[in-house]
Amino acid sequence: MPDFTPTPADRFTFGLWTVGNTGRDPFGEATRPVLKAPYLVERLAALGAYGVNLHDNDLVPIDATAAQRDALVREFQQALSDHGLVVPMATTNLFSDPAFKDGAFTSADARVRAYALSKTMHAMDLGAELGADTYVLWGGREGTEVDAGGKLLDALGWFRDSLNYLAEYSESQGYGYRFALEPKPNEPRADIFLPTVGSALGFIATLDRPELFGLNPEFAHETMAGLSFPHAVAQAIDAGKLFHIDLNDQKMGRFDQDLRFGAENPKGAFFLVKLLEESGYAGPKHFDAHALRTEDEVGVWAFARGCMRTYLILREKVQRFAQDAEIQAALAAYRVHDAELEALTGTFSPANAGALKAHAFDRAALGTRGPGLEALDQLTMELLLGVR
Amino acid sequence: MPDFTPTPADRFTFGLWTVGNTGRDPFGEATRPVLKAPYLVERLAALGAYGVNLHDNDLVPIDATAAQRDALVREFQQALSDHGLVVPMATTNLFSDPAFKDGAFTSADARVRAYALSKTMHAMDLGAELGADTYVLWGGREGTEVDAGGKLLDALGWFRDSLNYLAEYSESQGYGYRFALEPKPNEPRADIFLPTVGSALGFIATLDRPELFGLNPEFAHETMAGLSFPHAVAQAIDAGKLFHIDLNDQKMGRFDQDLRFGAENPKGAFFLVKLLEESGYAGPKHFDAHALRTEDEVGVWAFARGCMRTYLILREKVQRFAQDAEIQAALAAYRVHDAELEALTGTFSPANAGALKAHAFDRAALGTRGPGLEALDQLTMELLLGVR
Amino acid sequence: MPDFTPTPADRFTFGLWTVGNTGRDPFGEATRPVLKAPYLVERLAALGAYGVNLHDNDLVPIDATAAQRDALVREFQQALSDHGLVVPMATTNLFSDPAFKDGAFTSADARVRAYALSKTMHAMDLGAELGADTYVLWGGREGTEVDAGGKLLDALGWFRDSLNYLAEYSESQGYGYRFALEPKPNEPRADIFLPTVGSALGFIATLDRPELFGLNPEFAHETMAGLSFPHAVAQAIDAGKLFHIDLNDQKMGRFDQDLRFGAENPKGAFFLVKLLEESGYAGPKHFDAHALRTEDEVGVWAFARGCMRTYLILREKVQRFAQDAEIQAALAAYRVHDAELEALTGTFSPANAGALKAHAFDRAALGTRGPGLEALDQLTMELLLGVR
Amino acid sequence: MPDFTPTPADRFTFGLWTVGNTGRDPFGEATRPVLKAPYLVERLAALGAYGVNLHDNDLVPIDATAAQRDALVREFQQALSDHGLVVPMATTNLFSDPAFKDGAFTSADARVRAYALSKTMHAMDLGAELGADTYVLWGGREGTEVDAGGKLLDALGWFRDSLNYLAEYSESQGYGYRFALEPKPNEPRADIFLPTVGSALGFIATLDRPELFGLNPEFAHETMAGLSFPHAVAQAIDAGKLFHIDLNDQKMGRFDQDLRFGAENPKGAFFLVKLLEESGYAGPKHFDAHALRTEDEVGVWAFARGCMRTYLILREKVQRFAQDAEIQAALAAYRVHDAELEALTGTFSPANAGALKAHAFDRAALGTRGPGLEALDQLTMELLLGVR
Repeated sequence: MPDFTPTPADRFTFGLWTVGNTGRDPFGEATRPVLKAPYLVERLAALGAYGVNLHDNDLVPIDATAAQRDALVREFQQALSDHGLVVPMATTNLFSDPAFKDGAFTSADARVRAYALSKTMHAMDLGAELGADTYVLWGGREGTEVDAGGKLLDALGWFRDSLNYLAEYSESQGYGYRFALEPKPNEPRADIFLPTVGSALGFIATLDRPELFGLNPEFAHETMAGLSFPHAVAQAIDAGKLFHIDLNDQKMGRFDQDLRFGAENPKGAFFLVKLLEESGYAGPKHFDAHALRTEDEVGVWAFARGCMRTYLILREKVQRFAQDAEIQAALAAYRVHDAELEALTGTFSPANAGALKAHAFDRAALGTRGPGLEALDQLTMELLLGVR
Repeated sequence: MPDFTPTPADRFTFGLWTVGNTGRDPFGEATRPVLKAPYLVERLAALGAYGVNLHDNDLVPIDATAAQRDALVREFQQALSDHGLVVPMATTNLFSDPAFKDGAFTSADARVRAYALSKTMHAMDLGAELGADTYVLWGGREGTEVDAGGKLLDALGWFRDSLNYLAEYSESQGYGYRFALEPKPNEPRADIFLPTVGSALGFIATLDRPELFGLNPEFAHETMAGLSFPHAVAQAIDAGKLFHIDLNDQKMGRFDQDLRFGAENPKGAFFLVKLLEESGYAGPKHFDAHALRTEDEVGVWAFARGCMRTYLILREKVQRFAQDAEIQAALAAYRVHDAELEALTGTFSPANAGALKAHAFDRAALGTRGPGLEALDQLTMELLLGVR
Repeated sequence: MPDFTPTPADRFTFGLWTVGNTGRDPFGEATRPVLKAPYLVERLAALGAYGVNLHDNDLVPIDATAAQRDALVREFQQALSDHGLVVPMATTNLFSDPAFKDGAFTSADARVRAYALSKTMHAMDLGAELGADTYVLWGGREGTEVDAGGKLLDALGWFRDSLNYLAEYSESQGYGYRFALEPKPNEPRADIFLPTVGSALGFIATLDRPELFGLNPEFAHETMAGLSFPHAVAQAIDAGKLFHIDLNDQKMGRFDQDLRFGAENPKGAFFLVKLLEESGYAGPKHFDAHALRTEDEVGVWAFARGCMRTYLILREKVQRFAQDAEIQAALAAYRVHDAELEALTGTFSPANAGALKAHAFDRAALGTRGPGLEALDQLTMELLLGVR
Repeated sequence: MPDFTPTPADRFTFGLWTVGNTGRDPFGEATRPVLKAPYLVERLAALGAYGVNLHDNDLVPIDATAAQRDALVREFQQALSDHGLVVPMATTNLFSDPAFKDGAFTSADARVRAYALSKTMHAMDLGAELGADTYVLWGGREGTEVDAGGKLLDALGWFRDSLNYLAEYSESQGYGYRFALEPKPNEPRADIFLPTVGSALGFIATLDRPELFGLNPEFAHETMAGLSFPHAVAQAIDAGKLFHIDLNDQKMGRFDQDLRFGAENPKGAFFLVKLLEESGYAGPKHFDAHALRTEDEVGVWAFARGCMRTYLILREKVQRFAQDAEIQAALAAYRVHDAELEALTGTFSPANAGALKAHAFDRAALGTRGPGLEALDQLTMELLLGVR
């Protein structure tokens, strides 16, 4: 049996805020002490991670002086260099400070919108300094509880203006960022703008420079809305917009759990790994999750190790799936080709359309054919459970 | 008090399948007899409706001969003419026949995909003959239960090819249809492709002629996924893609209920009516719902009358909201302008960006300002409950 | 129009933790300062509240000395006396301290279970000193994320032992408490034990002294699981177990929102008020909610005033409903009596059963009768919206 | 590797309605032909099933004459005898006929309530004739869409009266049935009475002869409400009320999917099998599910075989879990004993309570202990995935 030990070649990343999570929740205080960024870098490297990502304030407190900032950055860079980790992605904390309580780019207060832009440009500077080439935008506070405020249409306009502005900033500075929007349906706001992968894709089409923008889909976020994460990622891939990915787990229809990857939905995780591995996705696999609040630091590293091991276990199963003759036969039988009809549907022409309209279809035969999906799914489950 | 009686000027429409619903459900048989299309037209007209919409097989059985089809169409057209109703929208039934059990445009069987195209072109002919200018595409069976089938990416490609084909057909025939995609997250499939308004918007951006495609959002469908329907409709309006709308109601996170408009979420319905009335939406307001299965025909018309009355009641409240001085004062106070900062954020330039980055923001002040949203929301509830 | 201003006779109560909520959430810091208990008492009294409820640590910090405790209690009692408020209910904070991170009465650590018992007895002493006669038990941390721990059956046993112990303590001290269990499906644990009103009712039947235990159902908690709160409260009333009630609001299938009463589901709130008013419920109506995090202190009092006003508005609608002749006629028509059959079903006897088995029922007639529910529901909506 | 082929000793059962499901759904017609009961018996026996369960009308059409009934029953008994299958459970169809459209035992029409009692007594006769000792009561239509009807409290009373009546009937006939209530939160009604395992447990406590009533929990039904099925089953076991069990699968927060056992939530299925196997549950394991609508008859048997195989695969993993030294060590470390404190909490006495109140707990130590749950959960996942 393979040993499922990760190496940097696997391109696994964590956020400082993930392994550094202290376990505070809406009903209770922190259960773990704050761990310093250089220490997190050291430990992640020892586990085989490739990189570490951050919000500006994960590294630099919001009220740090310039000198404090520079010292923290230097110390962090030294740790990265010492332990061989990179920073592929950076982002902005636009949700912790009370200033952003009613939104950042979509606040009804023009001063907050301006502050959000300013803070993000500073954070982009920091990310660029650390070598990041992907910039994530998670609009955690961009939303509403009270739609009576009447800002829905304005908010989308303000959001678009901000993204266009930041794209210009990136280009003018030569940062060359690819921006990755991270959708989420709710929490901490009752309804967050751009709630799903699809809505982010739709929004990108309205931007000035859509080519600079793509997606950072998160397993848990799409799952909260009861949507299939593999389906959502497939749409992002189809649109050429899978710029980054956040891996974790979650039960449907409840609070944001940020569970260890694969801990809840191993079957969905398997199809996701299959999509990533077979579609040529080459970006980092980022685990945006944290150890359960019950855990001490030992549990934190068990959590981090578990995320990576489960990915590797599933990747090995993806390879087996491709090599399993019975499964491949079922897959081949599932698809029916018809050269004559495919010629008519391949390209529109009035003649093709006419022939298609005139074609006599055998409805009954089409309706009674058995596609073999129960059998295929059971084979897949048995492969997943390790008994084939 | 206004009498809330609809007239055709209100542009309310129903589907033949809505007032004609017989009450069959997964656990029981029909509780109401089939009502003929001309009779439905007569009754809807008497209630003040503007139009009636249909799937091909709502009017013409799937196995009708050409002569039977023509007789049914003539009889229907006569009823429309007699009672002054129009057919603004048509669509295809690609879900009832077992041929479509594993999808229509996205079936793994090329013959089914061809049949779906053929059937849709015939249905477009029917719609055009009846005067429809909007063509709705609801992919009810386009989805999966078994992702092991491995068709996620192919399915999106097949779907796109079909939509491109149908757009060419519409143009070549001079039909001038505007196509409206209707998303739904699940049911009858475990996971339906293009599950949300956003995903349909994102998909349109990948089509050959995106300008011909827009949305037909449905209140219940977005609500099933726990998403805010007013937010979704706002995004469709923002993108210029609100081509049609399906009004009904639904509890979150459960089976497709198709309740009477406003019956479950009157507050959400109010914000929706506000968006439609204030954004200049001029299309039909279509009620895609049906009477409860418990009801007889008397209940069907109570249902239809109730949908329209509730819309008109809410529309009157939208007008009151705009005229309520206390509410308008709260709205004005909610928004904060700042000419200096808005000048810096309005247009990107390196100088503006630099000034913005150098600006000293008073975080504490931004974070402690009270936006007055609880008070505004309570005023709105009291207006909605008719006590102001 | 009535003015909907509450008085103590309405028996509205708030928790210190509700109007004192500082707006901290999983993603951000507090947006409001801590307000002292005596000040909250003064303000609630001015708004017309009847009482104020508390967790032990809402008033007395977990690490307070005995002298500090006594001073805080005296100061609080003075405020109650000055402003005419009572403390009808008390409860224990068994969720904030890290000691309880994996449960209190159901922790796998016997020391934590013992500490939870000890802390609760002290808190019962405090409640009794303040005059409370209802003791609420919310098992917020009693649950799991990791069922591999294997404690499900043990945990129920430990929970039962603790409740039995506390009942003995109450009786032995002469406190005469009625214990009210407060169910919640999830958050902050992935799955909380006794997740619904029903499961608490079921559990009470296994206790040594079931007569001392009842329910404190919460609108938001049942709604999180997509269950009907009026249905759940009806079951509690039917079982004689509605000891207390927590009023607030919530969208289904998402994080615990604790919205202002009636803010999201006014129709469900109406049916709830109808049940409470018409079933003879005489206990306090407790608002277990808080102002939105966006709000400052002005918003807190708008929130509190709104909760009570909405209850009174709905109560007045309940009275109208009972007096509305058209609605009452619809209700009368909904119910069908049959003296002969009711005689046979009223009491079991072999003769009655035999006659019932031999009776010829007219299935078709039973199936085609129209119960008039769409019409009744629309009348109800129009009453709710204030247009009848 | 074991071969996971079931035998009757495994006590697996199916319903006639499960393998006989024709694939009709709310949006489409049947995709499979009706299969006769004797044929289903033959095929199930060949696959290794133990028994087959039925609603009255699965075998005997609602309008059958007495002679037709007897012929069908004889033919079915012959098949059972020929193939060695038993009928451990029977139930009544109180949902398909339009007579029950607004409930059966809880209809507002006294004639419907009487008919439901009559029909159930006949069905109990049939079940007894076939040898069933468990009688399931699923109140699929017992619920509401329109709470304005005002029957919530009456309905619970009618329901109780009916259950008491049927218990008397069973005893007077000497049938000796154990009644198993099957809860479901919604579908086909908006809100079903007794929506969860807990609510059924609570209701049983109000019956005249609670000892005759227990539960038939269903995996999919509890999951629809986002509740943990293992937790619910644990509560039923704790209360001594697990009389029967329905195995299948389901995604949370959506329509009733009735998926193949283990197809969606293999981890939850594993914990369920663990509970059943380790708690001494000796009843049948009933698969209340059906093949996907896409499937032909080949798919039906793939589905049935898959349900049983997955159970056996998981049962073997339960044994491995118990034998895995690393897992057992983690479990032992998870639990902390303390003889002194357990003595004080074991039995209430004023002295014990006093000592407990006076005990000084080391909160900090209790809060910082790491329970090792992330590591334990990862070990469990790896066992489940077959890599340990």
